[in-house]
Amino acid sequence: MKNYKCIIQYDGTDYCGYQRQKDLPTIQEFLERALEKIYQSSMTVYASGRTDSGVHALGQVIHFHAEEIVPTDKIPYAMNSLLPPDIVVLKAEEVNADFHARFDAVRKTYEYRIDNRRIPSPFHRRYSLHVPKLLDVDAMTQAAPLIVGTHDFSAFHAAGSSVTDSVRTVYQSQVDTDGTWIVYTVTADGFLYNMVRIIVGTLLEIGKGKMAPSEILDIVHSRDREKAGPTVAAQGLFLKEVTYSASEGET
Amino acid sequence: MKNYKCIIQYDGTDYCGYQRQKDLPTIQEFLERALEKIYQSSMTVYASGRTDSGVHALGQVIHFHAEEIVPTDKIPYAMNSLLPPDIVVLKAEEVNADFHARFDAVRKTYEYRIDNRRIPSPFHRRYSLHVPKLLDVDAMTQAAPLIVGTHDFSAFHAAGSSVTDSVRTVYQSQVDTDGTWIVYTVTADGFLYNMVRIIVGTLLEIGKGKMAPSEILDIVHSRDREKAGPTVAAQGLFLKEVTYSASEGET
Repeated sequence: MKNYKCIIQYDGTDYCGYQRQKDLPTIQEFLERALEKIYQSSMTVYASGRTDSGVHALGQVIHFHAEEIVPTDKIPYAMNSLLPPDIVVLKAEEVNADFHARFDAVRKTYEYRIDNRRIPSPFHRRYSLHVPKLLDVDAMTQAAPLIVGTHDFSAFHAAGSSVTDSVRTVYQSQVDTDGTWIVYTVTADGFLYNMVRIIVGTLLEIGKGKMAPSEILDIVHSRDREKAGPTVAAQGLFLKEVTYSASEGET
Repeated sequence: MKNYKCIIQYDGTDYCGYQRQKDLPTIQEFLERALEKIYQSSMTVYASGRTDSGVHALGQVIHFHAEEIVPTDKIPYAMNSLLPPDIVVLKAEEVNADFHARFDAVRKTYEYRIDNRRIPSPFHRRYSLHVPKLLDVDAMTQAAPLIVGTHDFSAFHAAGSSVTDSVRTVYQSQVDTDGTWIVYTVTADGFLYNMVRIIVGTLLEIGKGKMAPSEILDIVHSRDREKAGPTVAAQGLFLKEVTYSASEGET
């Protein structure tokens, strides 16, 4: 058996998230079904992590074990010919037998896209949050990097979800804009459930002038979910990149 | 009664074209339904021209007659609140009583987008044609401007469609690329049925090396639909801009 690592992209709009669920369309189900047609046996796909319903991926990483039936460089073409067009395998490589897409991930980067025009584009509605009110992007740009570092991020953790350890290290947290689009990019060693969407909800409160930029750090220190902003919609969120330790090579 | 001109955008993926058809979703039907809710009377919307099933618009122009119930600058917001999110009114203005979106149009510009990566993006599949074979873009770039001028474009007219006059003047015809995306842009005083999609089908034959760039002009002169390339898929086509005579102002 070989161990294959793949980088995949998907438009999450029409899926109930990554993880298999009975009778609901999921990314995992379509990947496993495609592989089962290729390898003619029951297959399990492991991802770097789940993505929620409606969340997209620019660089999700998966791995699976299989016999060497298809040459590694042909795996993307074989899979793409069997996958729906909104799930795409970009690249496949053979990795060490013990490589695990989830357990070996050392960093993940997410991106959240906001369409800040008065009137939204019909072409981006599936891939962004439309905020018609002109946001104070300077305030958001100031606030974003304040959360870089190692913190207990309980305040940005979906209420009611079970926590064992809510300390995470954020390496990068920044807001970029071209005047129309606002893109928030965040890299961390891991994320709590809904963490990115609650950070963005908080940055939007700052962009709307309801909170000062510095308050974002007070919210982190409070560890109180009630103090943070709301959880923004899934359709603006993209899993951008997953990084592995040097021994596995960077993706 | 006032006469209102609007610029609209739509993602044509989920519509059976612009023009109303019984029991099928069309852009015209949703526009008229939205206006009927606003104006509480039966409404007719006139467009610069039909777009086919799956074709998009970045700058379609419509007009309609209505009582002055809604201030002109509020019309886009009123309509957008009643339209599905894949149809958007960008701008409204009051025009002369005799302005007609179709009959007064003097030029139209279309754009056709080709995704020329080996593996297509799942985010652009609704808005481009995927051509995995690396195209000779230089040859396409040379060929495109050769059709500029006044010609009988019968060779680029859908076979079987009725023709009264197939002479059109093409003002601009060019291919641009950033190495991944190939965009064909064409401006003319009018287009025959499927003309842009057949020109692109012919440019693809040239890009695949099946035809020399200069042959595109031979095809024009032949007036023979059989000599031109196939009609490419609708999802790469965008109605980009409609221009009116100076008296109406440029859109």
